[in-house]
Parts: sequence; C-alpha cells; structure tokens
Amino acid sequence: MIKRKGKQVRPMFVFLTAKMLGEITPKTYDAATLVELLHTATLVHDDVVDDANERRGHFSVNALWKNKIAVLVGDYMLSKILLLSLEKNNPDLLEVVARSVKEMSEGELLQIEKAKLLDITEEIYFDVIRKKTASLIATCCESAALSVDRKDIRQTMKQFGEYVGIAFQIKDDIFDYGTPDKIGKPTGLDIRERKLTLPIIYTLNNSTPEVRKELINILKNKNDQSKSIQRAVELVNKWGGIKYSYEIMLEYAKKALNLIDNLPENEAKNSLKLLVNYTMNREN
Amino acid sequence: MIKRKGKQVRPMFVFLTAKMLGEITPKTYDAATLVELLHTATLVHDDVVDDANERRGHFSVNALWKNKIAVLVGDYMLSKILLLSLEKNNPDLLEVVARSVKEMSEGELLQIEKAKLLDITEEIYFDVIRKKTASLIATCCESAALSVDRKDIRQTMKQFGEYVGIAFQIKDDIFDYGTPDKIGKPTGLDIRERKLTLPIIYTLNNSTPEVRKELINILKNKNDQSKSIQRAVELVNKWGGIKYSYEIMLEYAKKALNLIDNLPENEAKNSLKLLVNYTMNREN
Repeated sequence: MIKRKGKQVRPMFVFLTAKMLGEITPKTYDAATLVELLHTATLVHDDVVDDANERRGHFSVNALWKNKIAVLVGDYMLSKILLLSLEKNNPDLLEVVARSVKEMSEGELLQIEKAKLLDITEEIYFDVIRKKTASLIATCCESAALSVDRKDIRQTMKQFGEYVGIAFQIKDDIFDYGTPDKIGKPTGLDIRERKLTLPIIYTLNNSTPEVRKELINILKNKNDQSKSIQRAVELVNKWGGIKYSYEIMLEYAKKALNLIDNLPENEAKNSLKLLVNYTMNREN
Repeated sequence: MIKRKGKQVRPMFVFLTAKMLGEITPKTYDAATLVELLHTATLVHDDVVDDANERRGHFSVNALWKNKIAVLVGDYMLSKILLLSLEKNNPDLLEVVARSVKEMSEGELLQIEKAKLLDITEEIYFDVIRKKTASLIATCCESAALSVDRKDIRQTMKQFGEYVGIAFQIKDDIFDYGTPDKIGKPTGLDIRERKLTLPIIYTLNNSTPEVRKELINILKNKNDQSKSIQRAVELVNKWGGIKYSYEIMLEYAKKALNLIDNLPENEAKNSLKLLVNYTMNREN
C-alpha cells in the first residue's frame, strides 16, 4: 500500500485550501490524513470492483492475494479511519468523510446499473461522476475550510472541490480515448468494460443513426477485439466526442476558479490555481 | 437484504441485556439497529470473501450481481451505519461499533494467513474467533449496558458477550462436521476451504502421526472429493475432535453465565440465559 502511493493530490487540496483561508492547524493534518487513507481504502476495494490486474505499475492487492483479502483490508482501513477520527474528537470531519464514502459507493452502483442499459444520458453521467469522484475532492476542500474555522466559506469550498472533481474525472475519461495529439494510444478499457463516459455519450447522441448503431454493436460485443476498440475511438474522435469533453472539462475548471476569484490573493491561492490547472493538463 | 433476514440473534442480545440491567431507552434501539445492520453489511462482504453461492436459501448478492456490487453495497451500508450513528450523536456507540468492524476484518485476515500454513494452534484459533465472531456479540452486550447508563458493568457485559460469541462460533464450526447424532450429513465446507477449526485442530494435535499425515493430505488436496471429506469427518469424530469441541463450547457458555450469576434475577435475565442455551443447542 505504502509503495504504491500516488500523486497525493487530495491532501494537497486540503493543505492549499486551508492555507489559502487561514493558518494550517492540527485539524488540517487530520483531514489530509483521513482523505488520503479513505482514497487508498477505496482503491483497495476498487481492485475487487474492476478486477484490475495492475494499478500504477504495482500489482494490485487483488491480483496478489485475491478478492477476499482486498475486501477485508479495505474494511480494516475504513474502520481504522473511523477510529482515528473518533480519537481526534472531530465529529464534523467524521460526517463529511462518512458522507463521501456513501456517495462514492452510490456513484459506482449507479454507473453499473446504468451501464447495463447502454442508454445513459449526460445528466446521469454527471450524477455518477459527481458522486464517485467529485464528492471526495469536495470533502477535501470542505474539511480544509472547517479545519481553519472558516464555516462561513465551507459550502463555497465544497462546491469548488466538486467542480474540480468533475473536471478531474472528465480528464480521466478522456485519457481512455487517448489525448488529441496521442490518439494512437488509447487504453479503451472503459469501452471494453462497457462504461459509458462523456466522449462516447456525446457521440452516441450527436452522430448519425448508423454511427450510433455501430458504436452500440462494439459496446455489446464482449470479445476483446482491439480492432473494434480502435474503431470506436476513431468514431468518437471524428464525431467530436473528445473535443466536446475537453470543452466541458475546461468549463468546470473555470466554474471552480470563478468561485475563489474574490478571495484575497496569497501564495496558497496561487498554488491552488496551479494545482487545478495541473489536473487539467496532466499526462497520466 | 430484507427478505433474507436471519434469526436476529444480535439485537436480541442487545434488548435482553439492556432489560436485564435497567429500562430500555431509545439508545437501546439505536444499538440494536446498528449491530444488525453491521452484521448484514459483513454478510454482504462475506459473500465476496467466501464466494458462497447460496446463503440461507436465498441467492447471495454476490451470485446474483457479482463481486463488485457486493463490495459496493457493503461499503454503502457501512457508511449509512456511520451516518446513522453520527445522527444519533452517540460517540460511545460509534466507537464500540468501529472497533468491532476492525476486529472482525483482523480476525478474518488472520484466519486466511494462518490457514495457508496448515499449522494453526488452538491459541490462534481462539484469537481468530474472538475477533471475527465474538467481538460483535461483545459489542451487543457492551452497547446495551451503555444504553441504559450502566457504565459500571460495561466491561463485564463485554466479556459476557465475548464468551457467548466464542461458544457460538465453536458451535458453528462443529456443524461443519455434522452433529454427533447426525454425523452422516456434514457439509465439510471448512475442510474444502482449508479452514482449520477446533475439531480438526484438536485431532491434528492429538492423534497419531499417521492420522495427522492423512488429514493434512486431505486438506492439501484441492479437488472436491466427497469421499475424502467424508473420511476426514470420520477421523475427526473417531479421535475425539468433535466431543472435545463440545466440551470447550460448554465451558465458554458456563464462563459467560457465571459472569451474570450475581446480577439481580429478573425475567430478562432468565430469557438471556435461555438465549445462551439456545445458541448452544440450535440445529442450524
């Protein structure tokens, strides 16, 4: 678990938000620790969920030790997180954290339910990613505000985190189709798993009946045929699904930045803006 | 979930313990609700863990919808439980509940780890079942005492629940070998899954080297051979593993009942004793 620690983007959102709004307190550290542990616990359970064999270059807990252990380790981590927050005697923090566990699992379940129907609207897509990804980043920014006694701006920062999280997930979903300049290397994993994300949802709803039919046939085809995955990526690109997704992503990033526009300028605010821009431009 | 509700033994322990010690309060209802929800959530995750196809006559969530959904539904339930207890503003309850989630996952992980070695001692076995089963029943009785403002007897009731839980799990483990009078119908599931429980641990350590070798060969054999499972059951029975387990089970039940012996007699205390005896004599 420790070896495969990622970019730790979530704790960065906690620290920068807190620093932008006031002076970092021990509660800020508690919040940063909790969100990162929570993120790690959900990744462990995600190993079961997605049956992924490899994550970030290290073999997943699942591949090494099977499903049962991944479930138990995730549960163990969740209970430890809970006990830690009880120790800290910080019920506000505990509540925002619990709420994001609930929303994340709801989001994933909604996605699985809707994917079966192959008939997902943009509205449902945004509902899914708001819950499964954006809620935790919203928690980062909300708990950071609470940690520096800024209840007055708690809701704004939660909204800020939600917009950033939505942009973040759209970026992830675009990656699956390759970037515009590296369109040749898509992973196509979402298509294989029949996960309908913004690029393909847009294309299904904004192309010809023939293209729609071809895409649906590819999605329904359970065989792992690289050629048809490649074909789907081409169609989505040709009919503007990727370009559209980029535009929406940037729109959400802008909505987020607008929310903090009126806050006093300082170094942390600048870094927070850079972090938002980084998440939009990252290459992995 | 609702359709397959079981015997609801755990809430019964909560209500009877509370009633024995005082007057039932709204906190007693909260505790009873939480432990039953928690038990259900762990059963859902258990569906992944044990890959069981059927539980109590209904198809498991896992068999119907696959692993990923079982994990997510379990997580969702755990977070709802957490949010419920936060709403109730009852940090004591939250802490005992969180501690039992932690202990249950630790117990299961310990069991998996040790099972690989095929070299489990009675000491480890008791450590496993104390954590994976007895901790939740201990939580029932402890939180019941807290719910009627009887902090003075909190530790005693926790210990009572732990002894009952240990006896309860030994009973479950004996079932796997069939009962003495119905020895012909063992499920042998634990042997198949290489789970070492008290009857076979005793036999491994208290028979001849030849019997030990034969049992280990059966355990190592991954093929699902009904005949060798039947042979293992016969050996365990012949060498006294089942009789011994019964004795230990009764010992723990007695230790539990001794703990409440000095408490004032009342109807609830009587029912609690009957409940303990029922768990020892139940046929399923």
